Amino acid sequence: MSQFNEVTQDLIQQIESIVGEDYCYVGERINSDFARDEMPIYGAHMPDVVCEPANTEEVSVVMRACYEANVPVTVRGAGTGLVSGSVAVEGGVMLCTMRMDKILEYDMNNLFVRVQPGVRLCDLAADALEHDLMYPPDPGEKTASVGGNVSTNAGGMRAVKYGTTRDYVLAMTVVLADGEILQIGRPVTKTSTGYSLLHLMIGSEGTLGVITELTLRLIPNPKENASFLLPFVDIHAAMASVPKIKLSGLDPQSIEFMERDIVDSSAAHTDNYIIPTEVQGQEAGAYILVTFDGNDIDEIFQRAETLAELADEAGAFDTLVLEGSEKRAVWELRGAFLTAIEAEEKLIDEMDVVVPVDSITEFLEFVHSEGEKVGLRIRSFGHAGDGNLHIYCCSQTLDEEEFLIRNKKVMDASYAKCAELNGQVSGEHGIGAAKATYLAQSVGDTQMRLMAGIKAAFDPKGILNPGKVV
Amino acid sequence: MSQFNEVTQDLIQQIESIVGEDYCYVGERINSDFARDEMPIYGAHMPDVVCEPANTEEVSVVMRACYEANVPVTVRGAGTGLVSGSVAVEGGVMLCTMRMDKILEYDMNNLFVRVQPGVRLCDLAADALEHDLMYPPDPGEKTASVGGNVSTNAGGMRAVKYGTTRDYVLAMTVVLADGEILQIGRPVTKTSTGYSLLHLMIGSEGTLGVITELTLRLIPNPKENASFLLPFVDIHAAMASVPKIKLSGLDPQSIEFMERDIVDSSAAHTDNYIIPTEVQGQEAGAYILVTFDGNDIDEIFQRAETLAELADEAGAFDTLVLEGSEKRAVWELRGAFLTAIEAEEKLIDEMDVVVPVDSITEFLEFVHSEGEKVGLRIRSFGHAGDGNLHIYCCSQTLDEEEFLIRNKKVMDASYAKCAELNGQVSGEHGIGAAKATYLAQSVGDTQMRLMAGIKAAFDPKGILNPGKVV
Repeated sequence: MSQFNEVTQDLIQQIESIVGEDYCYVGERINSDFARDEMPIYGAHMPDVVCEPANTEEVSVVMRACYEANVPVTVRGAGTGLVSGSVAVEGGVMLCTMRMDKILEYDMNNLFVRVQPGVRLCDLAADALEHDLMYPPDPGEKTASVGGNVSTNAGGMRAVKYGTTRDYVLAMTVVLADGEILQIGRPVTKTSTGYSLLHLMIGSEGTLGVITELTLRLIPNPKENASFLLPFVDIHAAMASVPKIKLSGLDPQSIEFMERDIVDSSAAHTDNYIIPTEVQGQEAGAYILVTFDGNDIDEIFQRAETLAELADEAGAFDTLVLEGSEKRAVWELRGAFLTAIEAEEKLIDEMDVVVPVDSITEFLEFVHSEGEKVGLRIRSFGHAGDGNLHIYCCSQTLDEEEFLIRNKKVMDASYAKCAELNGQVSGEHGIGAAKATYLAQSVGDTQMRLMAGIKAAFDPKGILNPGKVV
Repeated sequence: MSQFNEVTQDLIQQIESIVGEDYCYVGERINSDFARDEMPIYGAHMPDVVCEPANTEEVSVVMRACYEANVPVTVRGAGTGLVSGSVAVEGGVMLCTMRMDKILEYDMNNLFVRVQPGVRLCDLAADALEHDLMYPPDPGEKTASVGGNVSTNAGGMRAVKYGTTRDYVLAMTVVLADGEILQIGRPVTKTSTGYSLLHLMIGSEGTLGVITELTLRLIPNPKENASFLLPFVDIHAAMASVPKIKLSGLDPQSIEFMERDIVDSSAAHTDNYIIPTEVQGQEAGAYILVTFDGNDIDEIFQRAETLAELADEAGAFDTLVLEGSEKRAVWELRGAFLTAIEAEEKLIDEMDVVVPVDSITEFLEFVHSEGEKVGLRIRSFGHAGDGNLHIYCCSQTLDEEEFLIRNKKVMDASYAKCAELNGQVSGEHGIGAAKATYLAQSVGDTQMRLMAGIKAAFDPKGILNPGKVV
């Protein structure tokens, strides 16, 4: 029996009266997209009610009503997650933040922007550029909501130089489970003022409170950037260059790796054959893609010269300069990796592990060999500069039941290997419902107990996003 | 009546048998320095026992004994704190980490160092340099322990460019109140793996667990740096230049401000008259000190040209280049500000607030005017780039009782003003026992309740550093 109550007509009417009938959906009026995120393998769960509050106050009143009714609430942004973090696995009320999509204020003296959580990453990034500012976090999924990015501490391409979302959140407005509104943090970059509730909220995946406003740090936009493609014979050679690049002091904005088979798939899928397969008469099996940014293009190309020397020593066939349309085409190809995999496969499951940079090859080989053992195709790409890997188990011609059995074997073995290599379960996608077991295995009983204690302090009835993380 | 038990002979014998007699002090064998930190105004409290464990295992056994005996434990590093954070206000056992002072391992592939908590900041910084690496956090107090720096999330001079200690902690070994040993975090820079117990521990001032090992991120050491001194007519003009410098994209490593009177005091105290009082025929009332770093000195001086243009527009009398011995002399003068104040005053109390950068002048004026109202001398300096101010109420000829009365008036009014300006109680020194009331006023009852809930989850008997933070 559930610890929660069913959603009643009375609660629905309360929610309707708070957010307005046009923004409260029940039964068949609920779009089926709300039943899942972008990783369908974890199954669909329809919420009983979906509501879209307009502001903090409406969120507060909705939460108070749900708290009193003891009904679970699942917060959802753009629904682009990959671990069922915003799927209502226990039913109840889904609180969608996408109506709260305003960029509220730029503070050019203190270099921050105040936004509502439903602003999409692409819109914030573009708007900040209009102010000649950069919002550095750059996760692959540009249509994600910024609130979602904060809830999973999304990292993205530029984490090597700029860090993750965590590093750009100065303050937030949070509605607690019982409806109380809190201001956490302040628009300052340096603080030592009690336990960091701010850093606890970041990455808590909607389980501790509802984020209804964010104050985000911005930086002056670097005026120039250029990317450089380093083709190697195979992934071993490619990855061996990464610690050298990092140690060089060249300060790359990003260091991505790509294996040949995923480049080919993405090229075929997008009809974009920008990446050469043969370079200097040699067949490229893997690539490292490096980006530098700065205010002076000459200075960037000075760094590129040093990079080219390093690359040559490390066995790269060449250092190909990518500017303008070429650079865009390569990054478009890189951006289409996941959709290219999805297009070829009936079903996929994903790992988003992060391992020490010098363990990337060992981990990839391990997963590929586990895949071979059970007859599953493994495909992967990722952030070479920070060890964050996106690895996919692909169903190919298998039926779902058989795929799930084989998939579980690979996943279980791989997460155990990840822990052995001193890695973490997730680099940026979070735990959600999908990876909760692996989190528990990875951190152990005591840390899970501490997390449960924190959860209980914030949300004593456990109504916020039940079944996730803890 | 205390919630704790008295220290018994039996407990003392247990601790002696764990750490060895030479590292367990009782009664008159305890150095009186252990009764206070570096801000004597908050009073002295002698612990009943001081012990210095050699490693994680000894810490674990000591904690288990104290937990079973229900005796409070105050963790202490180098004792350089300023808010009684490591003072045993409830007596009991003081656990000093300074015997755990080893730098254990550099990982040059993944760019991290493993250290024990008792390593001093200056030793870590120097040792990292030997490996051509930089540990970016650079708090003013170089003899502080790294464990203490993590416990208060110390920031320091270079926070403008590199962030605070928080941004460099990848993982830690923690002994909980009951003696259990936890590994929190992993040596990876990007993670979204459950609630961040790591970020909760950082800045928790020894109230949640005992840090016994740290894995800290390092960066390639920038080969070059240069500082630039910008003299202005007064603090208003000086501070008005700061947002412009930050917005310029010149990427300063640090932006400090200094007022004339503190420069004069420090000059007299250290016999170091490096900073000119008259520049271009004008009397300087305040200065901005900017540092750039990078790998190419020419590129740094290109940035300096842009800085000079900005400074000129902002009303600076000049942009004075500081290299080599001049640079060292200016920074030595800057480093002696606090000791210069201490040398002139019988008693001081300190604020370590952080306010938005464009509120610095308003806040400083407010505090000075509050000081005038009650007849207290106010002296200040700080980190202009991040709004972190170190402000001192000075006793001059007043006796202690009268000073404390006036001081409280200024402090109460100033912390209220700080909250009004959207600032925080502490930028880097922490809350300790001294600022607990101001923390509670600043964040409100609910956040204090959440912090208490977190404390209870980690330390149900409340034996770790009682009377601090929560």
